[in-house]
Amino acid sequence: MMVRLARRMEDLRASDIREMLKFTQAPEVISFAGGLPAPECFPVEELKEASIRLLQQAGRQAMQYSTTEGHLPLRRWIAARMRQRDGVDVKPDQILVTSGSQQGLDLSGKLFLDEGDVVFCESPTYLAAISALQAFRPCFVAVPTDDDGMVIEELEQRLRGNPRAKLIYVIPDFQNPTGRTWSFERRRRLVELVRRFRVPVVEDCPYVELRYEGEPIPSLMSLDRDGLVVALGTFSKIFCPGMRIGWLAAAPHLFEKYVILKQSADLHTSTVSQMQIATYLETCDIDANITRIREIYHRRRDVMVAALERELPAGVRFTRPKGGMFLWVELPRHLSARDLLVTCIERQVVFVPGGSFFPNGGGEHTFRLNFSNMPEERIVEGIQRLAVAIREFLARRPAFEPRAAAAG
Amino acid sequence: MMVRLARRMEDLRASDIREMLKFTQAPEVISFAGGLPAPECFPVEELKEASIRLLQQAGRQAMQYSTTEGHLPLRRWIAARMRQRDGVDVKPDQILVTSGSQQGLDLSGKLFLDEGDVVFCESPTYLAAISALQAFRPCFVAVPTDDDGMVIEELEQRLRGNPRAKLIYVIPDFQNPTGRTWSFERRRRLVELVRRFRVPVVEDCPYVELRYEGEPIPSLMSLDRDGLVVALGTFSKIFCPGMRIGWLAAAPHLFEKYVILKQSADLHTSTVSQMQIATYLETCDIDANITRIREIYHRRRDVMVAALERELPAGVRFTRPKGGMFLWVELPRHLSARDLLVTCIERQVVFVPGGSFFPNGGGEHTFRLNFSNMPEERIVEGIQRLAVAIREFLARRPAFEPRAAAAG
Repeated sequence: MMVRLARRMEDLRASDIREMLKFTQAPEVISFAGGLPAPECFPVEELKEASIRLLQQAGRQAMQYSTTEGHLPLRRWIAARMRQRDGVDVKPDQILVTSGSQQGLDLSGKLFLDEGDVVFCESPTYLAAISALQAFRPCFVAVPTDDDGMVIEELEQRLRGNPRAKLIYVIPDFQNPTGRTWSFERRRRLVELVRRFRVPVVEDCPYVELRYEGEPIPSLMSLDRDGLVVALGTFSKIFCPGMRIGWLAAAPHLFEKYVILKQSADLHTSTVSQMQIATYLETCDIDANITRIREIYHRRRDVMVAALERELPAGVRFTRPKGGMFLWVELPRHLSARDLLVTCIERQVVFVPGGSFFPNGGGEHTFRLNFSNMPEERIVEGIQRLAVAIREFLARRPAFEPRAAAAG
Repeated sequence: MMVRLARRMEDLRASDIREMLKFTQAPEVISFAGGLPAPECFPVEELKEASIRLLQQAGRQAMQYSTTEGHLPLRRWIAARMRQRDGVDVKPDQILVTSGSQQGLDLSGKLFLDEGDVVFCESPTYLAAISALQAFRPCFVAVPTDDDGMVIEELEQRLRGNPRAKLIYVIPDFQNPTGRTWSFERRRRLVELVRRFRVPVVEDCPYVELRYEGEPIPSLMSLDRDGLVVALGTFSKIFCPGMRIGWLAAAPHLFEKYVILKQSADLHTSTVSQMQIATYLETCDIDANITRIREIYHRRRDVMVAALERELPAGVRFTRPKGGMFLWVELPRHLSARDLLVTCIERQVVFVPGGSFFPNGGGEHTFRLNFSNMPEERIVEGIQRLAVAIREFLARRPAFEPRAAAAG
């Protein structure tokens, strides 16, 4: 018996790509589709030791309800880490532990967005941010973005005289999906701009610790003096994603609102998981773990970039990210990455077509490759399969022929 | 620098009661305020063993991202448990693991409610359900409720000709805050009624396993043939709340929508926690654990009821719940439980004033007592302190004197 749902459900659908990819989890398939960390980097033994110690020393506390804000020793560690990284002036009582940084997106949508409000994002942007925010029925404005970040003039033009401008969402470091990183200059100018327009920014930083070359660039939050930047962070990429422990850092006037929303959303994040991580941080060396992750992903990135340079036909472009987990491929404009995926599934190699990363459509000729989850030899093999598929695909749809004709 | 928030934030405030109670966590304070399980019932040692086994056998899987729906062995256990309990025809693929059953409330609000839609609830009802649903800006209609549950005629009257009727929220077993349980007859009639009006029901069942006397009564979901009832469940009261593992069970057409919303809210619930519980369920005897919890809470309920009968002055009424964790006290109508709380804080005994459990105000003369968290001798001592405070309070505000005059 059908019942009436909220109007927001009209906009929210299961992704057909996700459905397609569900059938590609056989071991013989080489997947560049997910955003999965390498499981061989998970400190399983250390987590086991930390769990034993925790449950021996503070088992009852770990299993009981706790405060919405989160476990204080963990919040202290997070604040210290953020301060140490780029001098951002953030205190433990501005840190809210969330159920993954994904929850930070959901809470931000709830905090800021009424139906019809405008969210500015990079073009392309993280697809799960689109779906989290979409539940609050905003209009997305995808701001033209180049290798240095959002083009600030373009953002300014769109902010000017826009009374519904409510939120800016960006991933300045090793962006998902493109792998691109904002220059210092663009960060500085964004912070200046939002100060003038008083529009808050959600700065999503899941990959910031995964830099393989070059120098770290200060976060937006470290440049902000007006409490307009909310930073999202996570243990998913530096420890493990399965525990769903993330955080958000916000100025006090926003922080207290986030706490109210977090409480009504799920009371608090798992005490056991928070204390497991806190015990791990106390007794183990997470920096050694991160160094190991960086080394492995660094090599995988190098292997994937080299394979793409070797194998891809002319006319296919891709990014060379300095960190993170993804790179971004652009086919000639008349080609569809979704059609290519169909061919690739037959050849047992998969990726995520880029269209889903554009909230208002477009980017059909692009796709995202993940390089963190597959061992090096599988990356080489996978890129070979991909290149064969692309060549075959190009042969069927030559560059000079318009798409409609090619389909005939 | 203040920024513009979503309109919903006008309705959502930090509870001042919560703020008051923050200062009452000293060990000398006897708290009947929280809804905390007894930590001495947590199977700490078993969880430690289960964690070791899990991390030895499936550490990498436990630490990795997993499906939004949840860990399949856990979903199988939940479905089997629900079937076994009252024959409800629910399959594992109708079970969504949530971050506590609180998240089931948030997702239900998101799924069903547009601004101005009507939610029907018991009077009084669970205060965290009010705050979860309030984020979607509905109107609450508190339906008159007696010792057998909602008065169905009253609900029918309010449903009739109400085009905005969108959702009914109930806690049929050992309700929070009153401890009352719906009769079979009321359940049957509710299910008939919603079938006619096609309004979905969220049936919140956190306490259903905590029955201390009498026979279990079939759930609404077991009586529903139309997929209109969504059931929420949780491990918080039968295992531990600190892991935030709950679930919802829904008909397939609703289930798939919930999955979309869950994915955008936090991707999935902690894989580690889900697999820790699944391993515990596989290797330990949760029924023995529940029996132990029941025995302890049963005695605490008896002790609290006996103490109240002995100590409370005439004119103060209270419920005698057959299970759960709470009972409900009604002072003479002209008295304020908030004012009483101020006196009680001085005497180092605290409770939650009832007003917060009425979405549209009222119930100022009522309050909720929790009996699960304090040992028996503390319950006796606490009820003595409470009774002294009430007598003193009554002496200052005699029953025949109207409130306004008494304040002068």
